Amino acid sequence: MIPGPTPVPETVLKAMGRHPIGHRSGPFQALVRHTSEQLRWLHQTSQDVLVITGSGTAAMEAGIINTLSRGDKVLCGDNGKFGERWVKVSKAFGLDVEVVKAEWGQPLDPEAFRKALEADVEKKIRAVILTHSETSTGVMNDLETISKYVNNHGTALTIADCVTSLGACNVPMDSWGLDVVASGSQKGYMMPPGLSFVAMSERAWQAYERSDLPKFYLDLGPYRKTAIKDSNPFTPAVNLYFALESALEMMQAEGLEAIFARHSRHRAAAQAGMKAIGLALYAAEGHGSPAITAVAPEGIDAEQLRKAVQAKFDILLAGGQDHLKGKVFRIGHLGFVCDRDVLTAVSAIEATLQSLGLHQGEIGAGMAAAARELN
Amino acid sequence: MIPGPTPVPETVLKAMGRHPIGHRSGPFQALVRHTSEQLRWLHQTSQDVLVITGSGTAAMEAGIINTLSRGDKVLCGDNGKFGERWVKVSKAFGLDVEVVKAEWGQPLDPEAFRKALEADVEKKIRAVILTHSETSTGVMNDLETISKYVNNHGTALTIADCVTSLGACNVPMDSWGLDVVASGSQKGYMMPPGLSFVAMSERAWQAYERSDLPKFYLDLGPYRKTAIKDSNPFTPAVNLYFALESALEMMQAEGLEAIFARHSRHRAAAQAGMKAIGLALYAAEGHGSPAITAVAPEGIDAEQLRKAVQAKFDILLAGGQDHLKGKVFRIGHLGFVCDRDVLTAVSAIEATLQSLGLHQGEIGAGMAAAARELN
Repeated sequence: MIPGPTPVPETVLKAMGRHPIGHRSGPFQALVRHTSEQLRWLHQTSQDVLVITGSGTAAMEAGIINTLSRGDKVLCGDNGKFGERWVKVSKAFGLDVEVVKAEWGQPLDPEAFRKALEADVEKKIRAVILTHSETSTGVMNDLETISKYVNNHGTALTIADCVTSLGACNVPMDSWGLDVVASGSQKGYMMPPGLSFVAMSERAWQAYERSDLPKFYLDLGPYRKTAIKDSNPFTPAVNLYFALESALEMMQAEGLEAIFARHSRHRAAAQAGMKAIGLALYAAEGHGSPAITAVAPEGIDAEQLRKAVQAKFDILLAGGQDHLKGKVFRIGHLGFVCDRDVLTAVSAIEATLQSLGLHQGEIGAGMAAAARELN
Repeated sequence: MIPGPTPVPETVLKAMGRHPIGHRSGPFQALVRHTSEQLRWLHQTSQDVLVITGSGTAAMEAGIINTLSRGDKVLCGDNGKFGERWVKVSKAFGLDVEVVKAEWGQPLDPEAFRKALEADVEKKIRAVILTHSETSTGVMNDLETISKYVNNHGTALTIADCVTSLGACNVPMDSWGLDVVASGSQKGYMMPPGLSFVAMSERAWQAYERSDLPKFYLDLGPYRKTAIKDSNPFTPAVNLYFALESALEMMQAEGLEAIFARHSRHRAAAQAGMKAIGLALYAAEGHGSPAITAVAPEGIDAEQLRKAVQAKFDILLAGGQDHLKGKVFRIGHLGFVCDRDVLTAVSAIEATLQSLGLHQGEIGAGMAAAARELN
């Protein structure tokens, strides 16, 4: 129950465990063609979704360095560890970064973006870079609204880290006018880590032509050129492609609406369960991620609780990152997670609190509250 | 029988097919610790071997951009597709590239490097970048000798693409004084593609401190820092780590000397078999790679032959790349390949030539010549 690597279905593991095939062979081309269609479906886009062997960070870096040039001004949203990371990437490549901050646990304020974009009459801002679902805090940022403001600006691009939102909730790339959507395989995709994905709008591809940042492995031009021929510029992780095809088939069988409803239900159950036990949620009310629920148990060492749950029930929860270590634990409910998993996690947390003598309310209240949401 | 992805043992596939575990968990740390030791053994080095989720190109790019700065002068060996690629990478990052060329099929001339390095009295040359085993032509370059000249120079670094040499022949990083050794998982490692490896000498790490090329995902500093804690800076391809541990265990059980002897034997058998059928080798005599034998059948369409072998015997040979397409086919004998595989490949090529009416010598001569080398 961590936010990645997420659980992988047996079907997907079996597909992955096949003997690799040549990446320049006809059967592999057919696989690339099929997964390309599946990825367009998942992204709700008509654009190619390019597949990089690498982590989600590689995909985000690719989005940034393929659309921008040295000295370009960007607005970077920062309300957690991943927001911080995109600020670092932008600075590493010599961009002129204006950080739009929010406290950890709070969402980014769309108004702050609107004001900065409207004030930019000289159209200096080249991109707005932000995280949709901030994994470190369990906070959802309002990507749809911020993207609307970016589109009103006219020239800036929206570069979105959708690593823990894609496949968990609605991220309609084309209809929201997103320019770069980056994601990673070990999240909503229900497969192991190792592949990452980046899709770019026509506007982003126009910006690519102007971009002067040095790149080779993450130069998306060759990825696009070879994608047209159902191929890749470098040897791809063939077995992870097997897993990708299999996982996306399962996702297509379930359907986007059902997948989103399931994640939404699990968020409701996790939140209700924690509240009923008397544990505070870390994300501001109404801004919790459908992928992950961060819990800040006052007066309780979150690491102690997390370790006790693992020792007692063999359920791995995620800890707090950086300054949240010991203060926060996180329940991942992303990807191949069913109602039983969420009920089990809530029950295990409740039972562990009981056994540690830390349960403060009525025993069973958490489980019951979660169960109500799962009805 | 292609030079990657190479065949993967069932044991390795099974290890890979396990459920992924958390990459920040104790069990994964133990796995990283173990594979780090194994990788040092394979590289014959006391340095950390850093693991990148990415292709071999990512590892080579990392070696280049972590040790050099904009405008630095480098000598790039170019006698095939991969040599060409390192020239492109170097230019993409604004290095001042002097290309040391040899014809495709010929090895790089160590004397050319010696002269250029000795002439560099101002010590402007920062690095010599070259490919050890040139996969596109099946040619081995004399990395040991060239590295000696680089070390005599005193300040330049040797950055070596050992993608198809490591695990096929002796590449003792420390005793040869190599500064950067890059490799990829789908080659001698006997595992699927998706991981790449880069080891750097102390001199290379000193150069890292001065390097000003922009980087983030491929910035090796954080990889080194986290390697000390048996971890990774970004979510690694956990299941490929399972495969890595399993494959390296098999390699350790076989032993380096036995692995090298096996590859050397297979090179001898493939070469003898092809010669006995009357097919010319593409690599210059005495410079064939232990990983791959390129064959240039005069008067025969290499693609036609390659496709016929696949159709008739379900054995995939590699084609020629770029201008060699149709002129060359390549027999990969790298990684998890046994005597039977090589005998089978030679026999299948011979039998296919016979069925196409293209066999010019005594039927069976190729098989017999290969078999003699396998004795």
